[in-house]
Amino acid sequence: MQDVAHASAGGHSHATAPNPVVDFEVQPRSYHHWKVSYEGPIARVAMAVDPAAPLRDGYELKLNSYDLGVDIELADIVRRMRFEHPEVRVVVLTSANDRVFCAGANIHMLGTSSHAWKVNFCKFTNETRCELEEATAASHQTWVAACNGTTAGGGYELALACKEIYLQDDGNSAVSLPEVPLLGVLPGTGGLTRLVDKRMVRRDRADVFSTTAEGIRGKKAVQWGLVDAIFPRSKFDEKVLERAKALVTAASANLPTGERKGVTLDALHPERTSNGRKYRHVELTWDDTTRTASLTIHGPTPDDVALVERGADAIVRAGADVWALRAFRELDDALLQLRVNHMLVGLVAVRVVGDPSCAQAHDAALIKARDHWFVREVMLHMGRVLRRMDNTSRSFFAFADKGTAFAGCLLEVALASDRLYMLDDTSSPVHLALSEFNEGALPMHTGLTRLQCRLLGAKPQLDALVGRRELLDAEAGDEAGLVTVKLDDIDWDDDTRIAIEERASLSPDALTGMEQNLRFAGPETPDSKIYARLSAWQNWIFIRPNATGPEGALTLYARPERPQFDWSRV
Amino acid sequence: MQDVAHASAGGHSHATAPNPVVDFEVQPRSYHHWKVSYEGPIARVAMAVDPAAPLRDGYELKLNSYDLGVDIELADIVRRMRFEHPEVRVVVLTSANDRVFCAGANIHMLGTSSHAWKVNFCKFTNETRCELEEATAASHQTWVAACNGTTAGGGYELALACKEIYLQDDGNSAVSLPEVPLLGVLPGTGGLTRLVDKRMVRRDRADVFSTTAEGIRGKKAVQWGLVDAIFPRSKFDEKVLERAKALVTAASANLPTGERKGVTLDALHPERTSNGRKYRHVELTWDDTTRTASLTIHGPTPDDVALVERGADAIVRAGADVWALRAFRELDDALLQLRVNHMLVGLVAVRVVGDPSCAQAHDAALIKARDHWFVREVMLHMGRVLRRMDNTSRSFFAFADKGTAFAGCLLEVALASDRLYMLDDTSSPVHLALSEFNEGALPMHTGLTRLQCRLLGAKPQLDALVGRRELLDAEAGDEAGLVTVKLDDIDWDDDTRIAIEERASLSPDALTGMEQNLRFAGPETPDSKIYARLSAWQNWIFIRPNATGPEGALTLYARPERPQFDWSRV
Repeated sequence: MQDVAHASAGGHSHATAPNPVVDFEVQPRSYHHWKVSYEGPIARVAMAVDPAAPLRDGYELKLNSYDLGVDIELADIVRRMRFEHPEVRVVVLTSANDRVFCAGANIHMLGTSSHAWKVNFCKFTNETRCELEEATAASHQTWVAACNGTTAGGGYELALACKEIYLQDDGNSAVSLPEVPLLGVLPGTGGLTRLVDKRMVRRDRADVFSTTAEGIRGKKAVQWGLVDAIFPRSKFDEKVLERAKALVTAASANLPTGERKGVTLDALHPERTSNGRKYRHVELTWDDTTRTASLTIHGPTPDDVALVERGADAIVRAGADVWALRAFRELDDALLQLRVNHMLVGLVAVRVVGDPSCAQAHDAALIKARDHWFVREVMLHMGRVLRRMDNTSRSFFAFADKGTAFAGCLLEVALASDRLYMLDDTSSPVHLALSEFNEGALPMHTGLTRLQCRLLGAKPQLDALVGRRELLDAEAGDEAGLVTVKLDDIDWDDDTRIAIEERASLSPDALTGMEQNLRFAGPETPDSKIYARLSAWQNWIFIRPNATGPEGALTLYARPERPQFDWSRV
Repeated sequence: MQDVAHASAGGHSHATAPNPVVDFEVQPRSYHHWKVSYEGPIARVAMAVDPAAPLRDGYELKLNSYDLGVDIELADIVRRMRFEHPEVRVVVLTSANDRVFCAGANIHMLGTSSHAWKVNFCKFTNETRCELEEATAASHQTWVAACNGTTAGGGYELALACKEIYLQDDGNSAVSLPEVPLLGVLPGTGGLTRLVDKRMVRRDRADVFSTTAEGIRGKKAVQWGLVDAIFPRSKFDEKVLERAKALVTAASANLPTGERKGVTLDALHPERTSNGRKYRHVELTWDDTTRTASLTIHGPTPDDVALVERGADAIVRAGADVWALRAFRELDDALLQLRVNHMLVGLVAVRVVGDPSCAQAHDAALIKARDHWFVREVMLHMGRVLRRMDNTSRSFFAFADKGTAFAGCLLEVALASDRLYMLDDTSSPVHLALSEFNEGALPMHTGLTRLQCRLLGAKPQLDALVGRRELLDAEAGDEAGLVTVKLDDIDWDDDTRIAIEERASLSPDALTGMEQNLRFAGPETPDSKIYARLSAWQNWIFIRPNATGPEGALTLYARPERPQFDWSRV
């Protein structure tokens, strides 16, 4: 585990546990923490966290509290629901535990985690909740929360990601965000943002609610907009089912085409070496000495193109083997590996190998078949993976040299990168190319396309790229505003080497902050506010002694000692 | 100085200097660091920082580097330019130093400052730059930067706040943001945000620029959009003047009415006691034991109303004595006092005393006279002070009990507060009241009115308030969505006391983060992104050992030792 950083990031004296190596691939048959059942168009996802199966030793997952392991399974459920259960229109998220819906993130886990672990845990859980919202908004799978007991902290934040929230009216079950009063941290898994920006709870009421540890229940919870309905305990299941059935009808309008027969997501089975992971289309290698990694994606082959050109039926028959699904699932896994298991890597050199015309033909054929539910899901998935890349705290430099094919959906990988270096070799030119995938199908969290974000101040350049399909050599790409640094063959090796070395020598924290500001030019949305405004403040609080110092509120939670605060307001 | 926190906020071992008590009021005759001259419609503001006059001991302000003292004078210049020099259409910001425009924030000052000091310093400098932009956008005073030498870090960020940037083309003068490569922190005074969101520099080029310590000069600086023009050294002054004259013409279109004769801003001379400051219309008292403060604003009197009802000429004759200017200048000073000199205060109890009908009449008369340049400036100033309040890291609870008059422009003070408690006493009712000031004249940084922000999810309630002018008792105010907690006479004392005590017992950091998220529901703008996305990441970095630890880059700057980084990417 050389590649995993063990140092406590905060410089505080209390111990933090070493980070385990995390595998993000799971299979339904081995879920520890969730029970999923299906009845026609309605699925029931019941949280049933096994206290004895935490991701690492040192804490018990009591009262349906969760850690990264629980959330990795939830993310898997959300993803598989879309691909493997396209017949499902409404997903009822509830608890298998009689009196507790979910107690939120496990506090002992947080209290004994390094700063980096906490930050990465929160980022992943935020992404899962955004995916669940996207399923509701874009995949005709409406998630609703049936809160059949205490719904606290991250438990309520999970409910907030659902389209509707039903709370059991039993004189006891409440929704609450006790993070500020009890732990000295924020409801940082979207909580504060979704309260005022999604549910549009009045900010003064949100202030009261977020400082009231015991939460709010019953009619007041409805009046304040914290939940959509309350149902008595005796009729809870019945009422929820009634509501779910009504939502099935609503979610069944304008369904995409295609027979609703699921496509199984097989395991990726990458080949693992001491310094890398080799997937079918993606290769990741890392070097802790230079603190760099290399990420290479192999674009679609002529065979891949031929397949998608046969249309939706052929694509759905190929299922998880379709290049666009497989390659982006692999890219997703590689990004997560980098984030959590290779924290010393600061700079990722990105290459796309293949034929740009092939990539364009592939994209065009896929777009043509997009009315089919499965093709639609494949495309939505690509968008999610690219947004994961936008939010990954690593410097990405894309290198377009001989044999590369940053084109269409894979040009997005270059546009998500911090820079694009391109070889200008007139004797054997390298090309970039656009496809319809660069024009709206793969939006950022801000709602912009990556081209719109890149060319925010260059409307004429942006307009000139719409519909442009010829291959762009280095000069044309540079003029189009796509290339950061154009280098000839003589300078290429030295200049790119120096650029990589320089980047890897800078303060990792400063780079994370810089990239988070430069990558998201333009408007903000509730989604992007979660990763910017909310997460940045939470990260700040996570490193403050009042929360995580030896006498901080998070550190001392459930211990007899009272936290000792530095009372200065900063 | 009991009220000033001396503890190092970061828990690191290196020493930080104690914070001096800061006075935010300055007079032009005693500027240490700026030379201001006027020639008809063009003013010249030359930075001439006195190295020997820092705000506190321990560092020299070499090379036009700045500290809070320098920025307090700049803020004074920006403000007085609008009130005292309404004939000015273009302000040329330049340097009195031959080879250096500005080297940015003084690094030794930053390196020896407590966390809270750094955060408050950055917030104030950000506000000054936003005010300078507002002068350009709203006051027909166009600020341009004539960068006649090295323009580094905060120096370039200051230039970025100007409408146009001219750089001397002498083979040496460059613009640069060396914070990330040299100091391990961000260009956090708006730099990163203004690069990509205001000047819309391509994000990949902004990435190169922000990691290139030596910066960019000459034609490339123009090509990349970092500056608007370069002029040779021999013709620099002449060309800048030429450009300024052209901008005078542009800035002179659609000028507001009224003779362009300035109104002098006199000193406020508050009465100072051991636990308070008493201004003419505002009273501030604090109690470090309970960590609370009380802020009381006296609304306009019938005499104040009679004055503004006489119209613009009478208002401008009254000048700085006009209630709306004086009271908001006092409120501004009180907020700054709280921020920097009373850091132990966590909760501020806000009251507005007076007659709500009077306040309404005052607002109506002021709005009627708004075409006059002075009245317009008074209103713009009110907006700036309220935005300062929105961004103040203190909990504000507004209390509407007997004798209070949260009405019109002063209702905004309640809407800027985190909660409004209102007494429901039918025998002697308390009232709230709206005026046109609540409908757009005093926007938040997000562009919304405070009513729009508060009622984001309640369009019918919002619409029902437009034009509503009758006095609202507690029940009506509650129904209108303005009241957080309505209490009868019996419960008032106990319930408000408990609410204050509870609030003052919570972690100051968690509250700061929570308030920053709940106060700004809705859209973001470049301005609001500076205070949210950029500042929050900067605050995080300021507390990270890689920047401010004993071996951090900021701490060790200009020392022989190299910084030692924890290489983990978080």
